[in-house]
Amino acid sequence: MRILLTNDDGIFAEGLCALHDALCGEHQVIIVAPEAERSAVGHAITIADPLRVRKIKRNNIFFGYAVSGTPADCVKLALYEIVNGKVDLVLSGINRGANVGINVLYSGTVSAATEGAILGYPSIAVSLNEYLEPDYCFAAYFTSCLIEFLAKNGFPKNICLNVNIPAIPAHQIKGIKCVRQSTKPLIEKFEKRIDPHGNIYYWQCSEKFIEEDPDTDVVALKEGFITITPLYHNLTSFEILAKIKSWNIEF
Amino acid sequence: MRILLTNDDGIFAEGLCALHDALCGEHQVIIVAPEAERSAVGHAITIADPLRVRKIKRNNIFFGYAVSGTPADCVKLALYEIVNGKVDLVLSGINRGANVGINVLYSGTVSAATEGAILGYPSIAVSLNEYLEPDYCFAAYFTSCLIEFLAKNGFPKNICLNVNIPAIPAHQIKGIKCVRQSTKPLIEKFEKRIDPHGNIYYWQCSEKFIEEDPDTDVVALKEGFITITPLYHNLTSFEILAKIKSWNIEF
Repeated sequence: MRILLTNDDGIFAEGLCALHDALCGEHQVIIVAPEAERSAVGHAITIADPLRVRKIKRNNIFFGYAVSGTPADCVKLALYEIVNGKVDLVLSGINRGANVGINVLYSGTVSAATEGAILGYPSIAVSLNEYLEPDYCFAAYFTSCLIEFLAKNGFPKNICLNVNIPAIPAHQIKGIKCVRQSTKPLIEKFEKRIDPHGNIYYWQCSEKFIEEDPDTDVVALKEGFITITPLYHNLTSFEILAKIKSWNIEF
Repeated sequence: MRILLTNDDGIFAEGLCALHDALCGEHQVIIVAPEAERSAVGHAITIADPLRVRKIKRNNIFFGYAVSGTPADCVKLALYEIVNGKVDLVLSGINRGANVGINVLYSGTVSAATEGAILGYPSIAVSLNEYLEPDYCFAAYFTSCLIEFLAKNGFPKNICLNVNIPAIPAHQIKGIKCVRQSTKPLIEKFEKRIDPHGNIYYWQCSEKFIEEDPDTDVVALKEGFITITPLYHNLTSFEILAKIKSWNIEF
């Protein structure tokens, strides 16, 4: 397969290298990733500024293309300009930290894969539930198994598969669970601080999930399952749409 | 009502002022908006950097709070730190340019309102389908009518209403249509250019919709309707989820 590989932690991130190394023996892996970390940029794209592309080496061999934009920019620019011909898969990750629940909307990693799905390509986002000391070995291995399975059984069309992997020893993983995205809000806080010049600033801190439904990505991941959530880029609430069609708004 | 007003064009944008002026007679309008234009940032949030808040005057009177972050940051920071007590509505706009179809995912204006819905507040995003010479008068008037209607008939819970208004004379508007978000990809291009130093750069240009379904936001707006699309922050494809539950992936 021809795989377009990207992420939001930047082209030099360990998680991206781990995926590359696990897949490059069997597949052609083309890397187009942000030149630096672009976490939590969601589905941001760059319209008002130009984008630049640099060739990057690793161990003195050409490794991939670094782009001066967001993860979604990388996928667009790769598929429209950089990649010669079509790809079989858009793969994003491995992200440092989980992308479940509401964080799916904030995640650059997931948005890159969603962009792939919008443009009509099979796509997968992979995240590891560990921020401080991530070990990507098992997650990269599992991704290669998943890709092998999908190559045999077919990729769902226009869908981004959002995969989250627990950061526990492989033998403790309870299995794979296909679950919905949790929609509960995070419990968040801002810390109010004073800078050395006496000015107030705020820093977002301490996110916490309040979800309890075991059939959500948030809870299943916490319980030790690998989670797979199929994402489709349609935010319409059809339930509410049916109700509001009878509205009679005067103006 | 207490209305939290924000946008992605920045606190000094005409569209925001138009909404403020149309609503401040009847309602308490609290403005918390980005200090500068933050278009197409999607649902980006600021985690790695601090956020600063500045009080802004207009005509020598306190007007609102300018935040050094994204539209979603503004809503979070407003509701957690700046606004004293709850609000009745999170309102975002009026955006310079439509936010329909796939652009809903890229839009900072819509993401700000979605953030309001995530946090449990009724929310509305308003956009005008004109980028070059926008006249916000009618759009602001319509928004005040919509708010009056919703105040009487009830806001849908946990939903962001995405409203798009055609930039044509009011008497030519065909009516209001409640429609789904179009999911068709945009036809996009990148222009490849050479900078004064001989280096290549790319610039995204010429977006075009290919949607034809009249029951979508893209087509209804083009046909001269005011469109309302209820958005819910759940990207799960339940159709595909039901299918993939039987997957047996070996690892």
